[in-house]
Formats: sequence, structure tokens, C-alpha cells
Amino acid sequence: MVLSVGDETGRIEERIELATRSPQETMPEMLEFFRAKGISALGIGSFGPLDLDKSSKTYGSITSTPKLRWRDYPLLSALQKGLSVPALIDTDVNAAALGEASFGAAKGLSGCVYVTIGTGVGGGVLAEGKLLHGMLHPELGHIPLRPLEVDAMPDGICPYHKGCLEGLASGPAIEKRFGIKPALLPQGHEAWELEAEYLSQMCVTIVLMLSPQKIILGGGVMHKSGLIEKVREKTVSALGGYIRRPEILENIADYIVPPLLGDNSGAVGALILAARALKESEEYK
Amino acid sequence: MVLSVGDETGRIEERIELATRSPQETMPEMLEFFRAKGISALGIGSFGPLDLDKSSKTYGSITSTPKLRWRDYPLLSALQKGLSVPALIDTDVNAAALGEASFGAAKGLSGCVYVTIGTGVGGGVLAEGKLLHGMLHPELGHIPLRPLEVDAMPDGICPYHKGCLEGLASGPAIEKRFGIKPALLPQGHEAWELEAEYLSQMCVTIVLMLSPQKIILGGGVMHKSGLIEKVREKTVSALGGYIRRPEILENIADYIVPPLLGDNSGAVGALILAARALKESEEYK
Repeated sequence: MVLSVGDETGRIEERIELATRSPQETMPEMLEFFRAKGISALGIGSFGPLDLDKSSKTYGSITSTPKLRWRDYPLLSALQKGLSVPALIDTDVNAAALGEASFGAAKGLSGCVYVTIGTGVGGGVLAEGKLLHGMLHPELGHIPLRPLEVDAMPDGICPYHKGCLEGLASGPAIEKRFGIKPALLPQGHEAWELEAEYLSQMCVTIVLMLSPQKIILGGGVMHKSGLIEKVREKTVSALGGYIRRPEILENIADYIVPPLLGDNSGAVGALILAARALKESEEYK
Repeated sequence: MVLSVGDETGRIEERIELATRSPQETMPEMLEFFRAKGISALGIGSFGPLDLDKSSKTYGSITSTPKLRWRDYPLLSALQKGLSVPALIDTDVNAAALGEASFGAAKGLSGCVYVTIGTGVGGGVLAEGKLLHGMLHPELGHIPLRPLEVDAMPDGICPYHKGCLEGLASGPAIEKRFGIKPALLPQGHEAWELEAEYLSQMCVTIVLMLSPQKIILGGGVMHKSGLIEKVREKTVSALGGYIRRPEILENIADYIVPPLLGDNSGAVGALILAARALKESEEYK
């Protein structure tokens, strides 16, 4: 859990990290930290899935997470009650998309997709200026991919889906397939060719389904030198000239990009959510 | 080309169809029809791809269509000039999504996806109350699918992409694979099992990427009795219980649905675009 204090310009004054233990252990630590800061509003970017339906009785709760101790935990209401400040919640990746669209790689754009490829794969979406929720919120880490014939583990490791993105391309999937942590696999290893292929399938589907103005790829796996270049190349190739836009045909290096805010995309997005929560509360006064 | 006259309540007073020949032949026919009606505004739902970037010099033009005589044709400006009324343009499938969300199967919802499966496959998207454009607009007919081993034509027929949705699941793809028009293939034929499989892969990806409140499946191929039921069943099965929403787990027959406006989804959406064009023009006065 990353806790930050800052302002609506995206400036972070203080930042600490806490281990995600149980609500009983972690919530008092979080409340204590923020109480000492005298914050005026709170923005939350949380792992999910989350209930983001404002008309729902369980609005702001974590729902069917594999982190069993947090399942059905009313995160928003517990923090609101504990801190007595206006608060807004969204997914961690939606917050990151908002942060990057406000002060980062997608600054000024009305649409972007932020994907983190790490211990899992998750994506946040800003579409026509709004964070996309819909029925639930995007869960694009689980889209079906087309496994390659050379892949020794074509079903992947996801307990829910055979051959989904997260099951094939997350950090743990790479480690399971090759028996070594991704960070230790050298740049020329076949693992990276396979990884780039799967991430390019994802980018192709993002372009064709969501048509964002920018695709931002973050998370630990993307730290591998040379990977994003391969993803760009394979994405352009797989689109086959069908999408005749300069972003794709002429300037892909400025279309599929790393986050500009580094590890703070989500924290900055959460600050903006906090500012919105404050504004909404003032409008209701 | 379908030409309709109606009002902002979605009521269609008159409807005719013209063959899509060349702009030189078809445009005068269209202009003549509308001039005689005394319309006060025009809404256009066009085949694409379209340039929908309002800051672009070619805003409202058809771009890289396979209908070569219409390539780079400035459809919006030609109609605006010829009729001297306020006009708005969007894709045919975005117009259909708007029509269904206003007066059809997705009435009152802030998000839906409308997919037509016919001579091609195209999709329109309403997200958080807005028609999705982004960089271009969704072109979801070309997402990569995972071809089945039993498919004798796993690469499909799309000239741009091996194994994309349109290449595998459009009407012409079915006809090429089985040598007979889809309408003549009986209900129990293996073609429909395969078709439902591919359309369910599409629905799964739509749920995970766009998270709409409703998926509407239209177009000639969907007229086959029993097909939509199979698509629903395979979609729920492939999602594997991961998306724990009542729409998916309890009421899929009310989530993946046929259009309520039949063949008029796009025409009704175009009427709403016309009303918006009129309103915008009055605001600028």
C-alpha cells in the first residue's frame, strides 16, 4: 500500500509504503498516518475488483479479490469514517490512467489506457475524458490471447482462464515458464520475444476496441530494457496497415510509451480524485 | 444507404433505401430526397473508417474504406453544403449504439456496445454516456481471435489480418468456409457451433475491455435461430466466474441481446445526432 500526501497539482509531499497485510492490521496504520497529516480529502486507487456503482449498497467495497482477507471489505466507507474527510475511490489502474492523463505521458489527452504488467496484469481506461467503469470496470488482464506454438506453457497460469493475458504474460507466468525471475532473464532470451508477442496482441486489441490516444505500459516486467521497442514493432506489424493513423504508422514510439510519472502514476491520480471529492463535497454544501 | 426522416423522439416518418454506388451517382439522389422534405438538421451514421477529429482538416470524411469510390470522400461537408442544415456524423455502428441506448435495448444505460455481424463485423461503443472515438473510433471487427483446431479455415478471409473476428465470423467467412450462404445452413450445422464460439470470444473481450452495461448483437448473421443463445452460454462459460456481476452470472439473456429497434437502430441514432446538431447550432447563435 502506497500512502501519499500532496495537492491537486500532482505534487507529492510525502510518500510511504506499507505491506498489504489484513484490514485489521493495515487499516489502523493507514488511518494513523493520514490523521497526523491533517488532510482535507482522500483519493483511493485500490486493487480490485471494486464495486464502483454509486447506487449500490456496497459502493466502494473490494469484491472478489484473490486477497482473501480483503474480500468484501468496505474500503471507502472505512476510510471515510476513520478520517471524516470527503473521499473518492477508483481502481489503482484507473487512478494511474488519470494521473498520466493529467500530469504525465498522456497530459491533455481525452483518452488513454494504462496497463501495468507485474505480478498481475491490469488496465485502467480514460475514454472521452472520463474514467471507464460501465458494468464493473475494465479487467483487461484477462482477455483471451492466441498462445504461440513455441510456448511450452500455452494455457498460462490463471486459475480462471486458459491462455489469458495475465496467465501468459505476468511476471509469475514468465517465472513459471522459464524457472527464473524475469529480472534475471537476459535481454536476448527467448522469453522476451514471447512476452513482446503477447503484449502486442494486447495492444492490438486495445487499439481496435478502445482506440485510445496513448497506450502507457508500466509495471515491473516493463523495466526490461528493449521490451517496449519489441512490443511497438510487433503491434504495428500485427495491425497490418489497417488503422491509418500517424500515431500508428509514423510515430509508434510516441504512442506506446512508459509512464512519465514512474511509480507515482497511481498516487498522482489519487490526489486528483481527492481534489474531485473535495470539490463535490463543497458543491453539496 | 438508408435515408430516413423523423424527429428527436426517434419516430421515423419515412424511410427509403438506395444502392451504395459512387458519390457522383448517389449523392445527388440523397440531396434530392432530403431537399424535398424540408428537414431542419441531418444526422449521419456512415460506414468507415471516418475522420471524426473535429480539429482535423478532413473532419467528416470517409478515409481508408475498401469501397474505393468513397475513399477520402468528404461526406459530412458535401451533405452540409448541399442541404444547408446543421449536421453531425458518426460511424454507422456508433449511431446504432446511440439509437439503442436512447430508445432501444439499452434505454437509459450510460454504456453499451452494438455489434453488427453481417457482410462485415463492426462495433459501436457508448461509454460513460459518450460515443467512443478516441484516436479514431473502435474497429472491433478486426480484433485477433483464437481460431479453433476444428476450423478448416483458421486464418479467415480478412486481407489485413490472419484470424481476426471479421475474417473468421462474418457472413462471407461462413459462406467461404462451408460453400453455402449462412441463411441456408440449418440450425444444427457445425457452422453455428463455430460461429458461436468466435462471437463468444468477442463478447468475453468486450466485457473485459469495455465493461458495457449491455451487448447488442445485430446484423444478418444474427438472424439465425438459436445462435444468440449459444453465444450467451459460451460467453458465461469462458468468463469462468471471474466477473461476479448479476448481469453475467444470473441474467445473461438480458445482457447479450438483439437490437430492440430491429433494422432502425442506426436510423434512430442518426435522428438523435441530427437533434444534437440542431441544438449545437442554436447554442452558437
